[in-house]
Amino acid sequence: MELNGQNRPNFEKCGGLLPVIAQDDATGDVLMLAYMNEEAYAETLRSGKAVYYSRSRNKLWRKGEESGNVQLVKSIYIDCDLDTVLIRVDQIGGAACHEGYKSCFFRQVTSEGLKIVSERVFDPKEVYKK
Amino acid sequence: MELNGQNRPNFEKCGGLLPVIAQDDATGDVLMLAYMNEEAYAETLRSGKAVYYSRSRNKLWRKGEESGNVQLVKSIYIDCDLDTVLIRVDQIGGAACHEGYKSCFFRQVTSEGLKIVSERVFDPKEVYKK
Repeated sequence: MELNGQNRPNFEKCGGLLPVIAQDDATGDVLMLAYMNEEAYAETLRSGKAVYYSRSRNKLWRKGEESGNVQLVKSIYIDCDLDTVLIRVDQIGGAACHEGYKSCFFRQVTSEGLKIVSERVFDPKEVYKK
Repeated sequence: MELNGQNRPNFEKCGGLLPVIAQDDATGDVLMLAYMNEEAYAETLRSGKAVYYSRSRNKLWRKGEESGNVQLVKSIYIDCDLDTVLIRVDQIGGAACHEGYKSCFFRQVTSEGLKIVSERVFDPKEVYKK
């Protein structure tokens, strides 16, 4: 996919890193928020798999590299300000969160504190063997 | 809603501003991404309406203040890292985007360029009269 000019997110705007929302293409669930730099975005377009930029490790993060839970990108959207990206994905393995939950937003804020509302799909200890 | 300790997002983490995803509670559509500081988050909890922090205007942004298109908050979620918030909202007026579209993500990235895929609900010139 060749993109240029106004057809791409404005990576100059936020110091080179833009927030990216990953949404489950089948269910509409919001799975996670991560960041992409221009290189990660270009590789995502090229490969069809979500590639982020890890702010803690300061390098490209090919989602699912270790766990196998890659995200196959079905469609990509850019917001009105060109500074946020939304991707609809097919989440392989059924879980986006490194804690084993389907969604990283597995805790709801309630008046009694945080309540777990998402399904745990895998045990992180089993998947991330060091 | 009283929240403390681990029951709240970690506003210290990202210089005081955390990204917030607003999702349509009825349809699951991702409407927009904006930012909250601690004050905006507290007022959102208190009032039940989405209050963001405008990075361009450097002040609280009570969504819908001008247009009337407020967001009634149905539920709030925090991600695994405590640094992103997801709110499910009832979008009054049916449009979250200042350009009059239902969603700020109204343009899809395609091999032929950007394609408008969201519905235009209002004419911004009519709504934002200066």
